[in-house]
Amino acid sequence: MKKLMTFAIFLMISVATFAQQALWGGQEIVSPEIKADNTVTFRLNAPQAIKVEITGDFLAPTKTETPYGVFDLPGTADLIKNEKGVWEYTTPEPLQPELYSYTFIVDGAKVTDPSNVYMIRDVASVTSVFIIGGERADLYKVNSVPHGTVARRWYESSTLKITRRLTIYTPAGYEASKENYPVLYLLHGMGGDEEAWIALGRTAQILDNLIAQGKAKPMIIVMTNGNVEQEAAPGESALGFYKPSMRMTRTMDGDMEQSFPDIVNFIDNNYRTLKQKSGRAICGLSMGGFHSLHISKEYPDMFDYIGLFSAAIIPNENAKSAVYENLEEKLKVQFAKNPKLYWIAIGKTDFLYKANEDYRKLLDNKGYKYIYYETGEGHIWKNWRIYLSEFVPLLFR
Amino acid sequence: MKKLMTFAIFLMISVATFAQQALWGGQEIVSPEIKADNTVTFRLNAPQAIKVEITGDFLAPTKTETPYGVFDLPGTADLIKNEKGVWEYTTPEPLQPELYSYTFIVDGAKVTDPSNVYMIRDVASVTSVFIIGGERADLYKVNSVPHGTVARRWYESSTLKITRRLTIYTPAGYEASKENYPVLYLLHGMGGDEEAWIALGRTAQILDNLIAQGKAKPMIIVMTNGNVEQEAAPGESALGFYKPSMRMTRTMDGDMEQSFPDIVNFIDNNYRTLKQKSGRAICGLSMGGFHSLHISKEYPDMFDYIGLFSAAIIPNENAKSAVYENLEEKLKVQFAKNPKLYWIAIGKTDFLYKANEDYRKLLDNKGYKYIYYETGEGHIWKNWRIYLSEFVPLLFR
Repeated sequence: MKKLMTFAIFLMISVATFAQQALWGGQEIVSPEIKADNTVTFRLNAPQAIKVEITGDFLAPTKTETPYGVFDLPGTADLIKNEKGVWEYTTPEPLQPELYSYTFIVDGAKVTDPSNVYMIRDVASVTSVFIIGGERADLYKVNSVPHGTVARRWYESSTLKITRRLTIYTPAGYEASKENYPVLYLLHGMGGDEEAWIALGRTAQILDNLIAQGKAKPMIIVMTNGNVEQEAAPGESALGFYKPSMRMTRTMDGDMEQSFPDIVNFIDNNYRTLKQKSGRAICGLSMGGFHSLHISKEYPDMFDYIGLFSAAIIPNENAKSAVYENLEEKLKVQFAKNPKLYWIAIGKTDFLYKANEDYRKLLDNKGYKYIYYETGEGHIWKNWRIYLSEFVPLLFR
Repeated sequence: MKKLMTFAIFLMISVATFAQQALWGGQEIVSPEIKADNTVTFRLNAPQAIKVEITGDFLAPTKTETPYGVFDLPGTADLIKNEKGVWEYTTPEPLQPELYSYTFIVDGAKVTDPSNVYMIRDVASVTSVFIIGGERADLYKVNSVPHGTVARRWYESSTLKITRRLTIYTPAGYEASKENYPVLYLLHGMGGDEEAWIALGRTAQILDNLIAQGKAKPMIIVMTNGNVEQEAAPGESALGFYKPSMRMTRTMDGDMEQSFPDIVNFIDNNYRTLKQKSGRAICGLSMGGFHSLHISKEYPDMFDYIGLFSAAIIPNENAKSAVYENLEEKLKVQFAKNPKLYWIAIGKTDFLYKANEDYRKLLDNKGYKYIYYETGEGHIWKNWRIYLSEFVPLLFR
């Protein structure tokens, strides 16, 4: 065996690694570098570039003219090239606790940071991400607490006649327990899918942390796919690696609402759940808030807890389905059954603010009870993470 | 309600989407575009760039000098700028069926393709990916077949005294069945983690497809983390979003091998498994092949099926543990118990080829039975996907 021992395995693996790193652009530079004072330095190795900028949600928004009107979009900042050909930018002020997203613009090409392996997809856009800890943002981090299980699992929708994918969070201790658990159904917005809440929403981290702190009851979270023509998230179905798009044609045609009991039945048949209204909650963001509104009123005995996060409220004339007819009559039935919580949240600058204001007036006029939670800013994931972490402590009490 | 109906929700969502897309660089161009004849066009919008290249494993390798010696590394090709500022490159020949990886080099910055949301991380490097279908590569695609469940789940290692993360595949039908299932333990290489096989390895797709074709028995696959100082993959532990590195210090210190029964016990206690040698297989790539070799000989009654994929065979002097001593005596015990399959695979140009050749000579000299499978090329994921799809049909027969 001696001769075998002479193989310097470690060295050889290092060489193979080097080759790989050299190939794929693994760089020794660190970016982003979060300093002790929470200022952040970004770096990009681009020795021949003429201009490198950064854009991200930590930069002050600027009024930007677009074909659709003038919008407040995150600004850009210039990186400066150092003597080694590495471009740098440091935030002038410490950043507040939050999960932030950014991209570089290299001579006109918008690209992610090759030194940062952490990225999150939102529809067809991928951004680099980092977290400044502290305060609420500590809920978004993986901490040394018991961790739940996250599964991607397929169910048969007998209504839609396709097999579909779910992301399911079961809390720490679920498998070893003999108890039945309550279930929160958590719905994404237009362009999203069953990966949205677990990725940008940080659902597993928020739940692990709130449960460990005793602030939320252990619960099962079911993240559905609200695009009824899809089996699964992009890349996870037989459609292959296609380019995602917002152009979903069947997001408000009533089929999501009418096929929802397939999901509830699947979960009740496959998990130890509390199989009654008081053990079920539903909430969603934007289009998912719209779905939550309509599903909860179509099935007024199914959910005792309803959350509308920056919800699209009323469909326009393109949304044709019996589901959307007779709204007021159906709400009357729903509220007559006294749901334990009807929770509405929106940001001050959300483009759906007025629609939500009008919807609240309707509820007020009828004397229907709800809780209203308002934040700054608009139709962004920062708000949806806040809403999730405010909503779940109110459930199943 | 009429006044609410006037809200053109769809339009407004489109505007918000536009804002987001404009912000984050979602581009209307398509890249990669796979043509009917399997030539592929890559595109990058970088109007101000001076030079844009592509590097990827579909480009002919070129001898490249490095500080560690001369290596065959994938070549580069130049993209050409069109009149709209979009750079393009089309492969001169159709590509063969395979999962391919690539990056762009924009004025010296190695970046992923912003028009392609499909990326896979390998240690600290992220590349864009696409699949040319046909032949074996159809196993790597999600097809219209029953899909298994993939779960990320945490277990307590009583030996290591930390909570650790596993990726677990259960085949379609597992949950509804009352049968007990065999288990394959699938180990990654140096720098990898419990995400490696499910991402670059396409384990869920390969198993779904082989099982649907009747070529593999339904089985549970347990993807472990072979870095005993890690709780979980980068970003999935309390260490946060750190930069991954190959510099693991405790990959060959015997602790992975000695703590492995914690995993087997956890799986046997939490899944309907065949709890005997004939119902267990273990295999791994590179360092994971090394671990498979040593674990299977340390516990000769645990695994009836052993696979070494491009395995590191013998530790060097840095690997100090009783686990690695008395190899020949332990192999004698293992082979006296007649494992049903001892399978060794490697590529012709792998830097570990000679080590494997010497190891096979050792087995030959002792008259120990094994099956040998040789491919072209070297220490690359293309080969490990092939080995997995050749190995699993041989199991549990």
